[in-house]
Amino acid sequence: MSLNPDLAARLGALLQDRLSLATPDLVQHAHSESFHNAPPPDAVAWPVSAEEVSAILAACAEAGVPVVPWGTGTSLEGHALATRGGVTLDLSRMDRILEVRPGDMQVTVQPGVTREALNTELRTTGLFFPVDPGANASLGGMASTRASGTTAVRYGTMRDNVLALEVVLADGRIIRTGTRAAKSSAGYDLTGLFVGAEGTLGIITELTLRLHGQPEEVAAAVCAFDTLDHAVECVTATIQSGIPMARIEFVDAASARAFNLHSGAGLPETPHLMVEFHGSPVAVREDAEAFGALAGEFGGQGFDWASNTEDRARLWRMRHGAYHASFALRPGARGIVTDVCVPMSELPAAVAAAVADIEAAGLVGPIVGHVGDGNFHTLLLVDPENAAEIAAAKQVATRMAERAIAVGGTISGEHGIGVGKRGLMAAQHGEGWQVMGAIKAALDPRDILNPGKLVPDRN
Amino acid sequence: MSLNPDLAARLGALLQDRLSLATPDLVQHAHSESFHNAPPPDAVAWPVSAEEVSAILAACAEAGVPVVPWGTGTSLEGHALATRGGVTLDLSRMDRILEVRPGDMQVTVQPGVTREALNTELRTTGLFFPVDPGANASLGGMASTRASGTTAVRYGTMRDNVLALEVVLADGRIIRTGTRAAKSSAGYDLTGLFVGAEGTLGIITELTLRLHGQPEEVAAAVCAFDTLDHAVECVTATIQSGIPMARIEFVDAASARAFNLHSGAGLPETPHLMVEFHGSPVAVREDAEAFGALAGEFGGQGFDWASNTEDRARLWRMRHGAYHASFALRPGARGIVTDVCVPMSELPAAVAAAVADIEAAGLVGPIVGHVGDGNFHTLLLVDPENAAEIAAAKQVATRMAERAIAVGGTISGEHGIGVGKRGLMAAQHGEGWQVMGAIKAALDPRDILNPGKLVPDRN
Repeated sequence: MSLNPDLAARLGALLQDRLSLATPDLVQHAHSESFHNAPPPDAVAWPVSAEEVSAILAACAEAGVPVVPWGTGTSLEGHALATRGGVTLDLSRMDRILEVRPGDMQVTVQPGVTREALNTELRTTGLFFPVDPGANASLGGMASTRASGTTAVRYGTMRDNVLALEVVLADGRIIRTGTRAAKSSAGYDLTGLFVGAEGTLGIITELTLRLHGQPEEVAAAVCAFDTLDHAVECVTATIQSGIPMARIEFVDAASARAFNLHSGAGLPETPHLMVEFHGSPVAVREDAEAFGALAGEFGGQGFDWASNTEDRARLWRMRHGAYHASFALRPGARGIVTDVCVPMSELPAAVAAAVADIEAAGLVGPIVGHVGDGNFHTLLLVDPENAAEIAAAKQVATRMAERAIAVGGTISGEHGIGVGKRGLMAAQHGEGWQVMGAIKAALDPRDILNPGKLVPDRN
Repeated sequence: MSLNPDLAARLGALLQDRLSLATPDLVQHAHSESFHNAPPPDAVAWPVSAEEVSAILAACAEAGVPVVPWGTGTSLEGHALATRGGVTLDLSRMDRILEVRPGDMQVTVQPGVTREALNTELRTTGLFFPVDPGANASLGGMASTRASGTTAVRYGTMRDNVLALEVVLADGRIIRTGTRAAKSSAGYDLTGLFVGAEGTLGIITELTLRLHGQPEEVAAAVCAFDTLDHAVECVTATIQSGIPMARIEFVDAASARAFNLHSGAGLPETPHLMVEFHGSPVAVREDAEAFGALAGEFGGQGFDWASNTEDRARLWRMRHGAYHASFALRPGARGIVTDVCVPMSELPAAVAAAVADIEAAGLVGPIVGHVGDGNFHTLLLVDPENAAEIAAAKQVATRMAERAIAVGGTISGEHGIGVGKRGLMAAQHGEGWQVMGAIKAALDPRDILNPGKLVPDRN
């Protein structure tokens, strides 16, 4: 497709060289870190203000042309792909940190600021932004997918850490949601509605985020287990015991092997838990010792907690690199990633069933997880030329999601729906999915905002 | 008004003696704890299941008759008053605790269960439900107003503690929102949308709530300050220091006097902070000592922390009784209650401005607050026969709300909008208020669910 000439002229007049119809720019916005791909968009726009986003949306709404927001392109379910053509709105030039308010433990940023850029800026303030999905994603993108990651067990997800937004609606209206107060009962929670809406209800052009005090003391440790069951049961027991874990991450034996192959990690090739403790020196010691005792009950070995910054950084670099490292288990493969999240008591059975199903299908699928939330991922490594294998992997992923729904869990703990999980929404939400569609229709009557994602197709 | 006879017959056939058109029942549902009153509804219905609620809503939608949900009648902004007539849906008979799941730290309840009934049931489980607005409200009502109270500084509000809902929509459809997983990125946060919607988008018929471990150790203390400024500045410093307060409540000198008059509390008639610490014995000691040192810096006196259960219960009974005790300052008065919440750094100035304005207006208005959240209340005590005084008090309340908006705060920290604060919604939300109206119109096209509350009037 190509952009209709009237719209191209109108946007060109507005954005000058910040609108591109050139193939390299278009192709650059057609890739994805995931299994999902799509044809390139018809144009890429790089707005620098809410007013420009508003003008672009008003023009696209009039022309009935889709608008797809783009942060850093690190989403895993094809959220930022222009599956129905149109204009990709690349927000990477809206990357200013607008105001840090240490006394309120808040910061206001533009959507293109990445989490690492924010934390670099905050380093000297004694504060930090904890949400950590691994990728150096943009904060607008993280809000839009309701991202979380390794620290959510302690600090919550984007749902808990976004206080207020500026949003441009489909018709170009600019609204502000939420407040800078710690809580509010003044009407519908519009902030909570736009967080996780994946750009289908509006474009986020500003975020006010909750910050947290840098912990006085941090200690981390890795602990090996003889069986997967013992590792996962230790997680459930730890959470139920109320030890305030800052991180508690599971990696299976295959992942440990991938770390060894990819970066010579030198881990025993068994299941592991990677944990972190934040607090006063007294509290960290108390928590680490309590966890160590529990891990021992489940046969955990080699638990040795240390507050050495370098060792800790290496540990979390390794954990965050799990997605890429896993490909060392099957060079040339592509990955289909799953993201179920279940109630804590259901976690051991859910992981065990996933393992059994992957084995029965003859697939390679390492498992890692933010298990303190009941959230785990498998990366099903498939031969991109082998249609039967891809189909088998998709069936394994679907069964995992269906089992999660059956025990009161969710098909996505943190990656979102995009194009990848849309087929499972009716199974999870029933008639509630239609309610989401009704809200979308009310706020975006022409269906221009990231169409074809998250909600049901219009009748 | 009276109910249209066809509808009365249809509902009567469904509910038998659980539908009443009798004056005493109607009058009983026309009162409110607040300044707001309204004519009685045309009928009161006591459904016992989601299916009955669904049948009532379908019938009322067809007839275009308003439906107003009722929990315990303790809301403060007239949420449950049938201002446009219709059927009051009294949910007090849907009062079953359906399932406690200790391993997941969750409970599923019907909406008519009160928070005290829930905590009585939980007593032996080692778990508790922390949200505590003072009144023994129903959990459905607390969710609908996004209630919080004294413990929100530690455990969050209803927004943070409701995981999943069953909701009956205006057309009678029954949906389930959320999941029992700790987090989810599977689509719009419908749970968050219905929490705080004050019954305007649907009727909550089941709630799954997050529970918390009963703290191993609890200690509480009260601390007197010589000036209001010192007390409030101590709060700001405490929160900024990161001491994990379980409660930190402010009462002003007038409130101390009211406690003395009302129940012989024997407090010095100066501003006070009432605080509580939860955790391990070591952590409670560390936190209490850190707070004590800070309070000392601000001239706090008489700080003496104790873990005696009876003393603690007396302290919080007194604090929870503040609303009623305050009338001892002016017998025969009625109260206009305010509920602003501001960013922490703005709290000292906001309280000081409120005090100055109340004094300038010649009013009696004691102040209490959940100041760890930046939330404080004034109870403006007015002569119900004195129109000029009532008008002056309303102006003071409006100016307080406008000042809160001006510094990034909210017109309601926890009481909600109802009929009382609707006139301030445009000032706080601007065009965002119209977005709330659009969502309401999409989900309740005939405007039968608690009409005349929260959202703008239909064109």
